[in-house]
Amino acid sequence: MNQLYADMLEQIEQEISEINLPAGPSNLYDPVTYIMGLGGKRVRPILTLLGCRLFSGTHHQAISQALAIEVFHNFTLVHDDVMDSADMRRGLPTVHKKWSHNIALLSGDAMLVLAYQLLLDKNHADLHKISTVFSKVAMDVCEGQQLDMDYAEKEDVSMADYLEMIRKKTAVLLSGSLQIGAIVGGGRNLEPLATFAESVGLAFQVKDDLLDAFGSDEFGKAKGGDIIEGKRTWLTIKSYELANDATKKELDNAYGLQDENERVQSVLAIYQGLGIESLAEAEVVKYSRAASRSLSEIDGDSRTKETMTWLVDQLVGRTT
Amino acid sequence: MNQLYADMLEQIEQEISEINLPAGPSNLYDPVTYIMGLGGKRVRPILTLLGCRLFSGTHHQAISQALAIEVFHNFTLVHDDVMDSADMRRGLPTVHKKWSHNIALLSGDAMLVLAYQLLLDKNHADLHKISTVFSKVAMDVCEGQQLDMDYAEKEDVSMADYLEMIRKKTAVLLSGSLQIGAIVGGGRNLEPLATFAESVGLAFQVKDDLLDAFGSDEFGKAKGGDIIEGKRTWLTIKSYELANDATKKELDNAYGLQDENERVQSVLAIYQGLGIESLAEAEVVKYSRAASRSLSEIDGDSRTKETMTWLVDQLVGRTT
Repeated sequence: MNQLYADMLEQIEQEISEINLPAGPSNLYDPVTYIMGLGGKRVRPILTLLGCRLFSGTHHQAISQALAIEVFHNFTLVHDDVMDSADMRRGLPTVHKKWSHNIALLSGDAMLVLAYQLLLDKNHADLHKISTVFSKVAMDVCEGQQLDMDYAEKEDVSMADYLEMIRKKTAVLLSGSLQIGAIVGGGRNLEPLATFAESVGLAFQVKDDLLDAFGSDEFGKAKGGDIIEGKRTWLTIKSYELANDATKKELDNAYGLQDENERVQSVLAIYQGLGIESLAEAEVVKYSRAASRSLSEIDGDSRTKETMTWLVDQLVGRTT
Repeated sequence: MNQLYADMLEQIEQEISEINLPAGPSNLYDPVTYIMGLGGKRVRPILTLLGCRLFSGTHHQAISQALAIEVFHNFTLVHDDVMDSADMRRGLPTVHKKWSHNIALLSGDAMLVLAYQLLLDKNHADLHKISTVFSKVAMDVCEGQQLDMDYAEKEDVSMADYLEMIRKKTAVLLSGSLQIGAIVGGGRNLEPLATFAESVGLAFQVKDDLLDAFGSDEFGKAKGGDIIEGKRTWLTIKSYELANDATKKELDNAYGLQDENERVQSVLAIYQGLGIESLAEAEVVKYSRAASRSLSEIDGDSRTKETMTWLVDQLVGRTT
């Protein structure tokens, strides 16, 4: 692992374990400790630290904002799990399964407030700018989740609609994480940072869809899980976009197969016939290159930029 | 109606109808427009305007913060209605009944973000102070709601616990509303304002409990509704506190009566025997006087103070 990333990860974990929550009511705050302790790559708060370090050479003044971002991210997980009726998260019961729907709802609300408390923790000349970026991102994330729910009921979703949904649901938070760190660090030109992070987010999402269908098991997911669940992904949308009427019918039939293994194999065969895998790979490369281009435009600390390049490689694979 | 209050109410209604929401997704933003349009006394945003006017002689610079408070209050209504499975609010279906649980959850989240957007709308020297007061209040309101849910499952709730719960669930938001307006208006000594508004909140809650049991129908509530629902109120807690073992048994029996009318009459008879009505009235007077005392300590615009006195009379009745 990259040393700077490793150091930052260790510090984030330490800070998370030390978040100062009120003593009670325990039904409000225990779920916060629980979900925050489930681990993960902590990509978003580390982006905040990296954003700060890019312009100031150090990341310590952005710790509280980094925590705010991670608390916000976990708030979305708690509420999304309620909306998706998801029982498990990172191998453990979700908050609403372990406690109740009402507790997940309310402790999620408290986490959103806690995120703002951490974000606006200290007085700062750029407090208004920080809160404006954060709230815009938070609203986009709500819109992305609503679009996701709307599209689940909709027959026909275009690639443009799908990309806008994942941009709001996933990419803008990466972008906001980096931008807020940069503001704290005194950065002024946020545009290339935003483009960098949004591109990484889109590349990551398409890569994730791709790995689910064609990847090996090392990523901890059952191959073809999205196909089994009938989930709409970049691959499904692209395949219906390219298919002629006969192939569309074949796709419908394949998705309708009772046997899960047969279903996965049949859908994958059609994807192969349409060349979906290489199209998706090209899409990942396109976004990754856009990310690299934006990164090269950023005038900041070189060790931080190296770590950002390393992080992109981890998330979406080497593209150069 | 007090002229200043009437003017402020008109302006608040106007501003609410003009809140600038994004065009879509409609499932996210239509519920916001719906719940905000259901009306009400708008006490909280008007307290914000009054808080500002106290110290600056005008209230226009606090409009955005007043809207933030009202949006926050309505966010709590949307989520509380989900948690309480309430079907109706102000004579119309609640958001989760009209749309769905998921939409109520997510549009509530968006309202909390919107509240922060409005609160921190413009750069302001006291932005940090404003956000600190607001977030503390928001966290207290979450704690109050959690305590309310916890106590619903609990046999024995003391008067001290009950008062702390309603303080957090109701009174602190009134206090925060006034304080935030005062900060925007340049006020420095917030302590008497906080005491004033919290006292009004507690007086109002006890008065509300009292009217439900002993009041007439002009307040739009069925007499004895709390008794029928078996809701814990100031009156139930006081009655169990004062009752001897025999009377406690009578109370248990009375609450257990099948016939609703009999239940109400039996419980009220026991309340009368214990002198609960006059004790509750004395409690309202105690808090109202504390409010008046705090108000007299505030050195601010006299017409604003007159309107605050008028508002207290409206909420909890004349005490002088």
